[in-house]
Amino acid sequence: MKPSTQPKAPAPKTAITPTRAENYAQWYQQVVRAADIAEMSGVRGCMIIKGWGYGAWELMQRDLDRRFKATGHENYYFPLFIPLSYFQREAAHVDGFAKEMAVVTHHRLAMKDGVLVPDGALEEPLIVRPTSETVIGEAMAKWVQSYRDLPLLLNQWANVVRWEMRPRILLRTTEFLWQEGHTAHEDYDGAMQETRQMLEIYRAFAEEQLALPVITGAKIASERFPGAVDTFCIEAMMQDGRALQAGTSHYLGQHFAKACNIQYQNRQGVQEYAHTTSWGVSTRLLGGIVMCHADDDGMKMPPRVAAQQIVILPILRDEAQKQAVMDYCAALQAELQAQLWDGQALRVKLDARDIAASDKRWDWIKKGAPLLLEIGPRDVQGGQICVTRRDRLAEGKKFLPRGEFITGAAAELAAIQQGLFDAALAFRNQRMRTDIKDWKAFEAYFAEDADNSFTSGQGFVRAGWSGDEASLEKLAALGVTIRCVPFDQNDNPGVCVLTGVPAAQEVIFARAY
Amino acid sequence: MKPSTQPKAPAPKTAITPTRAENYAQWYQQVVRAADIAEMSGVRGCMIIKGWGYGAWELMQRDLDRRFKATGHENYYFPLFIPLSYFQREAAHVDGFAKEMAVVTHHRLAMKDGVLVPDGALEEPLIVRPTSETVIGEAMAKWVQSYRDLPLLLNQWANVVRWEMRPRILLRTTEFLWQEGHTAHEDYDGAMQETRQMLEIYRAFAEEQLALPVITGAKIASERFPGAVDTFCIEAMMQDGRALQAGTSHYLGQHFAKACNIQYQNRQGVQEYAHTTSWGVSTRLLGGIVMCHADDDGMKMPPRVAAQQIVILPILRDEAQKQAVMDYCAALQAELQAQLWDGQALRVKLDARDIAASDKRWDWIKKGAPLLLEIGPRDVQGGQICVTRRDRLAEGKKFLPRGEFITGAAAELAAIQQGLFDAALAFRNQRMRTDIKDWKAFEAYFAEDADNSFTSGQGFVRAGWSGDEASLEKLAALGVTIRCVPFDQNDNPGVCVLTGVPAAQEVIFARAY
Repeated sequence: MKPSTQPKAPAPKTAITPTRAENYAQWYQQVVRAADIAEMSGVRGCMIIKGWGYGAWELMQRDLDRRFKATGHENYYFPLFIPLSYFQREAAHVDGFAKEMAVVTHHRLAMKDGVLVPDGALEEPLIVRPTSETVIGEAMAKWVQSYRDLPLLLNQWANVVRWEMRPRILLRTTEFLWQEGHTAHEDYDGAMQETRQMLEIYRAFAEEQLALPVITGAKIASERFPGAVDTFCIEAMMQDGRALQAGTSHYLGQHFAKACNIQYQNRQGVQEYAHTTSWGVSTRLLGGIVMCHADDDGMKMPPRVAAQQIVILPILRDEAQKQAVMDYCAALQAELQAQLWDGQALRVKLDARDIAASDKRWDWIKKGAPLLLEIGPRDVQGGQICVTRRDRLAEGKKFLPRGEFITGAAAELAAIQQGLFDAALAFRNQRMRTDIKDWKAFEAYFAEDADNSFTSGQGFVRAGWSGDEASLEKLAALGVTIRCVPFDQNDNPGVCVLTGVPAAQEVIFARAY
Repeated sequence: MKPSTQPKAPAPKTAITPTRAENYAQWYQQVVRAADIAEMSGVRGCMIIKGWGYGAWELMQRDLDRRFKATGHENYYFPLFIPLSYFQREAAHVDGFAKEMAVVTHHRLAMKDGVLVPDGALEEPLIVRPTSETVIGEAMAKWVQSYRDLPLLLNQWANVVRWEMRPRILLRTTEFLWQEGHTAHEDYDGAMQETRQMLEIYRAFAEEQLALPVITGAKIASERFPGAVDTFCIEAMMQDGRALQAGTSHYLGQHFAKACNIQYQNRQGVQEYAHTTSWGVSTRLLGGIVMCHADDDGMKMPPRVAAQQIVILPILRDEAQKQAVMDYCAALQAELQAQLWDGQALRVKLDARDIAASDKRWDWIKKGAPLLLEIGPRDVQGGQICVTRRDRLAEGKKFLPRGEFITGAAAELAAIQQGLFDAALAFRNQRMRTDIKDWKAFEAYFAEDADNSFTSGQGFVRAGWSGDEASLEKLAALGVTIRCVPFDQNDNPGVCVLTGVPAAQEVIFARAY
């Protein structure tokens, strides 16, 4: 039954139940599902990325790929499976991943007593890649002979598997999609420059494409990637004040070069080990933009990664006017698709599904399409467009002359993109505490709500730290970690908020996903 | 040492050793390697797709993806792992794949007596997907409720694993990349129309993008996809006269709908099982274009899928002229990149690597870049371009005025693309026998060379067949199969070439990869 023909029932307060304030974790899951971004599959810990979510991921891929290629990287594809012996070559690396690896032990099935069972045991078990340093290192060792072969700048788009005991959709799943860059260089300088360059690409990508403000910095030693000499990261704040590590870039020193024997003849004719890097972002970014931008009515998709930026909803109740409305909408779609934003045609969908107009409207609000146009017979007659901006639902519908809307559409999308970023930055600034200077205040701040919430007011604490990892033990009870040592340091880091001794640097403390 | 400064040694006859005539199978492997398309990895049966090969695959993906979206399909992503119980639901399906499946049995590693071993046994083993009908069917069963939810038109780009005992690079590897479309429809008509539509998309794609002429037709019952009611295919001829199945599109009837319980309420309000389809092409197409277009000097990459269509090689021996040559080349690159072919900017590489000019030239000849431009000081002074067309190496270099070359570049690429297709079609026509009418002639034709070769002259036999699968037993000794029942049937199929009885249809016989 079409709701629009029914007597009006009191509308639910919000499209998503529960709200952020009522139960943040469940609200997140409901938005991901209601927005058709992803859902958990029947396969334990593994998700299905649905059309609207995958469409956003494709746009992320396209933009990142452009940035990678512009900086000289080439895409390759390496095997899904890694022999156990490869993986063991780097000790810290295997220690870091051993507890969460899917292991292939057989290569066929056979019927035994009427039951299909694994058969054809492998001599050496294969690991399903959790990351590819060792298998790519093995190949690099063959390809790199001379300094003329360096730098070697590779990337791959791939799926990876890290067995999750407590999966959380998009943020922490057994299988996820990502890109992993792997590069080899002559020396420290070249590799470090690459590591920093890729982090900067991630920062620009997150802020420009995802409207996700991030803090750039270095991980402390205990938080580094297993096998890395230095790990740099971008960290974003979610709407419960928790941190999300949104991308990492690792300087691996000569650890993997030695483990995989990536040697080259240097400019002086001497054999040397290369310096390598790796860097990656994943589909967890889809979870990040939900947690950053969505509200109690569903997702607000940043226009630059929205598979459809403008959705046209024809109102077709009046049979006599149906064709006129459809024609008007089709012409409008074509004209909008001819508009460019940063050189790309606008993505415009005409949703002519035969379901109630209000259901369709709410579908797209929950998905977070940036601009909704509802077109009925009166709009056709008046040559106007009825517009809803998803980021300003409370302002309601606006009516604009057709021509004016079309020529201004790209600018409107740019304004929405900027508005999402500004709102996220304002939120982060509001929950970024720089005035907490001692343990008592620190503990009180994080103890107030042991699990953060939308309303708790908890967020990041930026404060001095001594650099002594032993001092972190007292954080365990709070569930707080050091997210990074921000690159933009104040001249005087003050005292260590944990111990009161002089601080070596400022760091960001937070609970994290 | 730079070869160009050495006294000239007698040049090898060809860049690839052995030649096609000397050893076709080894020639193929050498081209794949020399062209930097792919190489086998240290992981048994698994390959590495290298930059030039992956670049071609990306262009294939882009074109196919455009065609899929234009016909209403949306990309999703489904889990890599399939629980054994899902896979067993369709009996023919599990029988067809049981002997070649990678099986995950453990989810971590543990140290035992100083050795790292699989640990954390799974209650139910997981299959690494060889294809995704069952896991996608499971999801479709949840999503499809009413005829309004149909058709459901999904596609995924993914890796799949089918354990290969005798791998052959790109053509038959344990892991490969592909796309798999999966759709659900109300009835036979809708599903069959989809199955045929996707095959037609594959045909157009293969012929237009890959310059690969293909025969479209149906598989006979014993060659169908496990679980399919009908399998349609495109079949191409390689340069040894063997067939390569280059893409398949399956009408699955209600088999998987019943196995996965994909039921919907039809227009009359009655619960019914959906009719499903699936269709796919894979990275084996990269092998196909090598076997179809390459020659004894390496690959000839079809311009539409060449990651670089034009490669500029500056000749930099003369130090005083170096900057002038580089400036000329950079300007040339920019002007060429501003040229459009079918609305897309030309892909132009300036290869300024510091290695001998002749080594660079041969690098790109082996890779098969369609147009090579060698630019030295004399060309700069004369305002000219020295051009080599990869498909016409024997004609040598041509000198053209700069402006003339630039404005004609897109047309030249189109001519190369067409030329590759025409040559492949002529080759196929030459090796397509339609005059073999009885078993004696048939046996003699295929017995001449038990394994085909570049010089054998063997290819496809198009002849009548009774339709009786028992008659195929006599083909086993010859290693010949029926590739397809072509859609374009003659009115009178004549007699069965195997048995002499009246034929039910014409079919294509060949040895195949």
